[in-house]
Amino acid sequence: MSKKITLDEKDIPKQWYNIQADLPQPLDPPYNTRENRVASPDDFKPIFCDEIIKQELSCQRWIDIPEPVRDVYKIWRPSPLVRAENLEKFLDTPAKIYFKYEGVSPSGSHKSNSAVAQAFYNKESGVKRIATETGAGQWGSALSMACKIFGLECVVYMVKVSFGQKPYRKSLMQVYGAQVFASPSERTQVGKEVLLKDPDSEGSLGIAISEAIEDVITNEGSKYALGSVLNHVALHQTVIGLEAKKQLEIAGDYPDIVIACLGGGSNFSGTAFPFLMDKLQGKAPNLRAIAAEPSACPKLSKGVLAYDYGDNSGFTPALKMFTLGHTFMPGGIHAGGLRYHGASPLVSALVKHNLIESISVKQREVFEAALIFARTEGILPAPESAHAIKAAVTEALKAKEEGKSKTILFNLSGHGHFDLSAYDNYLSGKMEDYEYPADKVCEALTHLPKIKI
Amino acid sequence: MSKKITLDEKDIPKQWYNIQADLPQPLDPPYNTRENRVASPDDFKPIFCDEIIKQELSCQRWIDIPEPVRDVYKIWRPSPLVRAENLEKFLDTPAKIYFKYEGVSPSGSHKSNSAVAQAFYNKESGVKRIATETGAGQWGSALSMACKIFGLECVVYMVKVSFGQKPYRKSLMQVYGAQVFASPSERTQVGKEVLLKDPDSEGSLGIAISEAIEDVITNEGSKYALGSVLNHVALHQTVIGLEAKKQLEIAGDYPDIVIACLGGGSNFSGTAFPFLMDKLQGKAPNLRAIAAEPSACPKLSKGVLAYDYGDNSGFTPALKMFTLGHTFMPGGIHAGGLRYHGASPLVSALVKHNLIESISVKQREVFEAALIFARTEGILPAPESAHAIKAAVTEALKAKEEGKSKTILFNLSGHGHFDLSAYDNYLSGKMEDYEYPADKVCEALTHLPKIKI
Repeated sequence: MSKKITLDEKDIPKQWYNIQADLPQPLDPPYNTRENRVASPDDFKPIFCDEIIKQELSCQRWIDIPEPVRDVYKIWRPSPLVRAENLEKFLDTPAKIYFKYEGVSPSGSHKSNSAVAQAFYNKESGVKRIATETGAGQWGSALSMACKIFGLECVVYMVKVSFGQKPYRKSLMQVYGAQVFASPSERTQVGKEVLLKDPDSEGSLGIAISEAIEDVITNEGSKYALGSVLNHVALHQTVIGLEAKKQLEIAGDYPDIVIACLGGGSNFSGTAFPFLMDKLQGKAPNLRAIAAEPSACPKLSKGVLAYDYGDNSGFTPALKMFTLGHTFMPGGIHAGGLRYHGASPLVSALVKHNLIESISVKQREVFEAALIFARTEGILPAPESAHAIKAAVTEALKAKEEGKSKTILFNLSGHGHFDLSAYDNYLSGKMEDYEYPADKVCEALTHLPKIKI
Repeated sequence: MSKKITLDEKDIPKQWYNIQADLPQPLDPPYNTRENRVASPDDFKPIFCDEIIKQELSCQRWIDIPEPVRDVYKIWRPSPLVRAENLEKFLDTPAKIYFKYEGVSPSGSHKSNSAVAQAFYNKESGVKRIATETGAGQWGSALSMACKIFGLECVVYMVKVSFGQKPYRKSLMQVYGAQVFASPSERTQVGKEVLLKDPDSEGSLGIAISEAIEDVITNEGSKYALGSVLNHVALHQTVIGLEAKKQLEIAGDYPDIVIACLGGGSNFSGTAFPFLMDKLQGKAPNLRAIAAEPSACPKLSKGVLAYDYGDNSGFTPALKMFTLGHTFMPGGIHAGGLRYHGASPLVSALVKHNLIESISVKQREVFEAALIFARTEGILPAPESAHAIKAAVTEALKAKEEGKSKTILFNLSGHGHFDLSAYDNYLSGKMEDYEYPADKVCEALTHLPKIKI
């Protein structure tokens, strides 16, 4: 039966791990396409506070976690590491399967790990108000909670289609005191222009990002926050892997394979980087790290490595990343958190250097794995996290075929209590699969910014 | 900032505490009103397995928790105990407030503690299939999960109005492999009769209980399971208080006041009984235990102590309890789990002996307290659990007024991620308060069974 390894509060990491210190070569810098030059730290000052910019660019290996951030982490951290023995038995595999469970946070996912840190640094630097965008609502609710705890105002631009379809995520943000606006809104020029062209626009993450950024630029004392993709977000998430390492040590184990799902890259980074440190330092040469992507949006498996914008409308600096093109709109899979066109620059660099792998999986096989997991281990996974489960099951069955006892660790990044409409869709037999949309990707890739450095 | 006290898996209790061993006088026995006699253990055999009946009637102080049950508990137990320092600061109170958090279970509430035990004993005794009823769905999902883990079929009769209004709770039960039917159904005589009279009947918990019981009586190899009220359910829930005691000991503390919300009585019993043991044994004479009830359904505060049926249709044996009358239908508060007409016989006996207190609170003040809690401690409470928060806040403010440093422990029995429509109702200013419905209670009390023993 499943065995959980719990840590004490004092075991919450005191430092985040910054993989930039150990990369084979430095990251390609962000690029300012408006002025046709490499972006400088100053380019980020209108939207980020100094400490966040410093972390974004830092090559220091260990970065101290401020005590007030650790104090808030204590609400749910250290999170459990569980040996999934029931799942192992069900699969009849010689593999040992462990999962780290981030669904115990107040927002129900790993997003809180960075939200708390970002809210703290903004508060410290005198910021009064943070604006952000949210799609399905995980990031928005994590940031709303973090802002409330540190006494910051929080403004969330929520993609209109989700605002209507997922009213409860909106309510959760409001419980935490945030102001939530359906995007496109009449509050920004960007929003007004979209509505002028199409009064019935359902919005997009790209528009919402643009609205949030315009909001902070035009409101003094306001800054912007992003929930994935960037280096400082990956940094904050490393508490996941650092705790898991300690927990596996207690279990007397070390993973052969580390798995997490990949949207923008934050939970994958947080889980895998502390183990990849060992690989980069020559201590775990055979370690495999696998990013599990949806076949509807497989940037690592099928994308190109190029400079591209972080948002759909080309507002942000361009980042060097594996991308399907910033204008690419993936199919409507239920794992909304994975419907992002690019992979974080750090993850992209690791793929480039053949240090990590990716696998793309279809929606129905993901939900099939999710049900197996819920019925053996008891916990209902978020659809995003279920991509990692599917990949772990695939590796465990491979181990069985080869007769090898592998140790597999995956991150269960969130619970599925907010996602029961998706399960309903699956159980009623109505769920569709989404193939890799080659034509749409080819078209989107023609819109990449032309940058040569 | 909040400080969490975590225990290790080995600290999961090895025995449940049975308060029947320490009561000032034995419980009044259940009564078979059909045959006008005290109920015998045999009266329960058609619906419960032997071990459950034995526990229901046992006066043995400590009852071993079987290893397979402890193994499943490990999925989420030990649950955290948290010092709510942010809430204390917000209230500016000298009181120390601790809460035990049961929302970390896979079903999101304390219900799993008994569901797992009941599924195990039924499996052990050769039962193949369990039927139950569910209103809002917490118990149904907890039992579905427990049955799936132990390889039992699970059939849930879900009150039709909830089946329609809360399709996601139904989906959660189906994820765990349960068969869920809207009640009244065409599957039972009871259901057919109701539908014959009123084809549009929205059902009630009473009808659903009757359907579940008829189902098990007419299906060989089937037994029934109940999620609250009965002694064996209270017994299983004592893991909550036993862990909390150990955690407070680590904190060097002992409560002056223990608080939990009260529907049928299971989470109150589980939280308070292990502390009441000390009081009953003369070791904590001044300990106060407070049951927080909704003003819409205040059986302890306003009900009478009498023999009454456990279900609305008078199908079960009669139990001696504080009741508002089994035909009483409380107003439609959002805390569906507290809309029950009676309090468990054990809790009722403790009230009779002046060993515990009750407080009744109104819906809007409950949600006001819930918001304060979410905004200071980060966790979104279930509306039921928020009744306990309201009572804890009241006591903390009383301590402030009196200038006394009290130690308050309350049970946060579940998270509110399934209850965001209720928060939406509150935030939009549309929430109604429900006064104590004296007339309806007076009327209902005329239907009490006439029993004299």
